[in-house]
Amino acid sequence: MKKYLGIDIGGGSIRGSVVDESGKIYSEHRETTDRFSENEAFLSAVERVIEKNFKSEKFEKIGIGSPGPIDIDTGFIFSSANLVNLKNTPIIPHIEKKFNLPVRFNNDANCAALGEFHFGKGKGFTNLIVLTLGTGLGGGWINNGKIYNGYKGNGMEAGHVTVVMNGAKCGCGQNGCAESYFSARGLVNRYKDSTGDTLGSAADFFSLVQKGNPVAMQVLDFGINALAELIRNLIHITNTEKIIFVGGLTRSYDIFGKQLIEKVNEIIFPVFRNYTKIEVGSTLAGTLGAAALCFEI
Amino acid sequence: MKKYLGIDIGGGSIRGSVVDESGKIYSEHRETTDRFSENEAFLSAVERVIEKNFKSEKFEKIGIGSPGPIDIDTGFIFSSANLVNLKNTPIIPHIEKKFNLPVRFNNDANCAALGEFHFGKGKGFTNLIVLTLGTGLGGGWINNGKIYNGYKGNGMEAGHVTVVMNGAKCGCGQNGCAESYFSARGLVNRYKDSTGDTLGSAADFFSLVQKGNPVAMQVLDFGINALAELIRNLIHITNTEKIIFVGGLTRSYDIFGKQLIEKVNEIIFPVFRNYTKIEVGSTLAGTLGAAALCFEI
Repeated sequence: MKKYLGIDIGGGSIRGSVVDESGKIYSEHRETTDRFSENEAFLSAVERVIEKNFKSEKFEKIGIGSPGPIDIDTGFIFSSANLVNLKNTPIIPHIEKKFNLPVRFNNDANCAALGEFHFGKGKGFTNLIVLTLGTGLGGGWINNGKIYNGYKGNGMEAGHVTVVMNGAKCGCGQNGCAESYFSARGLVNRYKDSTGDTLGSAADFFSLVQKGNPVAMQVLDFGINALAELIRNLIHITNTEKIIFVGGLTRSYDIFGKQLIEKVNEIIFPVFRNYTKIEVGSTLAGTLGAAALCFEI
Repeated sequence: MKKYLGIDIGGGSIRGSVVDESGKIYSEHRETTDRFSENEAFLSAVERVIEKNFKSEKFEKIGIGSPGPIDIDTGFIFSSANLVNLKNTPIIPHIEKKFNLPVRFNNDANCAALGEFHFGKGKGFTNLIVLTLGTGLGGGWINNGKIYNGYKGNGMEAGHVTVVMNGAKCGCGQNGCAESYFSARGLVNRYKDSTGDTLGSAADFFSLVQKGNPVAMQVLDFGINALAELIRNLIHITNTEKIIFVGGLTRSYDIFGKQLIEKVNEIIFPVFRNYTKIEVGSTLAGTLGAAALCFEI
């Protein structure tokens, strides 16, 4: 079976794994990154991950998943919220030239969708959406068995779908995006709106909910409804067969999942109620989805 | 050049035209329908339209566009808001059997999108959305040069995308749909919310706007913003290259178009500002889009 190297660029580390089309992992290596790395140091770290894996296992292609904004046509990372000094980083041209191997590139949400499609809860479905519930809210769409890239890879900016016109300020500069109500940043900021208190994390927020804090419960209730409206919008536009949640907030799915599904079923057109399935994804290494970029032509 | 019969089922009439792939029209016939026609009388009227056209011109296939809800898999019209006694009308099986010709079927918004794609303002684009601004607000999406049908032809229910969570009651039973703010029904109903007065039509509403009626101006202002948020959502999800407006409300585009485009450009991600084009469509016969259903395999 053919083997591919998947590279997952995260905030604190770059991980690489050689995997085959069945999802079997043959090697794993990582390099930690400094939040303040500039282009050159960052690219050197990516090179080291590739070299270490290459010593363990041979592979035919490389797939790289990166947070955005990226340009999949040119293979550049424009910038990164977690690696603050990256700027127009020519990651794909650089790696292709250095290793003389084909390199595939996409954003992390699209890679997560591809991972679920090939190896996780999306197996057997050809039209599915993965929502990444983390610091922000991202989306990746598999349509007709392929990533829907849209324009330069910006397809499915699910977090920046407006559900509350003139609503809360979002990190994107606009108002009322789904992300501003249901994401780690959104929940913490909406809690701050009401109390003035800055919580350290989404875990702190959900801990307050579990202790019965009325403000936190109200913020969560509104956030669940906003996420349900986002899901309604995605279903009414794409008629997707499946919506899969991944990311840190899914650890609290026990707290919000039941209410969310009930709300979605209340507000979507009846024809979709028994059609679109909604659930939490598999716990997959990010490198698997990146490697799966190589499966496509 | 091959010829096809396109049939456009409207509220008051059924129109049929034989056209070729260049959009040239060879014949035109219509039958008026009674709003209270039942299945049998309705199907007889469709038959007469086909027979009359067949006497004028030969054709290879028939394409039929109908208001929904329909089931494109079985070829049934479930019901129709304008032909109130139609119920599970087996239009496609009936016509195929009667005339022994292949029959294609889709909803009117998808046919409008296909018409613009082949013969109108969508020529040369492979990813475009047509929004029908009429009594309600509908949508049809051409993706990769083909109609995006979704599940049973329900793809792109653009009017029922939520933009104002917990907002105004929509005809669909839910709240805050784009249709409840920008459609003939939506504008008239929102005006009624504020004044108690029931206007006779959207033309009456726009006439009040032009006279400077402050309530009508406020309702329109809100409606424009809601439509802009819908367009933002469609662009952020599909990254479409073009959005084309058709339908009765486009007659008032001079009144709302400029403000709408400015608002859209303010709220969409900058990367799309010079990418997605937005304009009013061509004045095309509905039969052209229906005939174009036959162009696809």
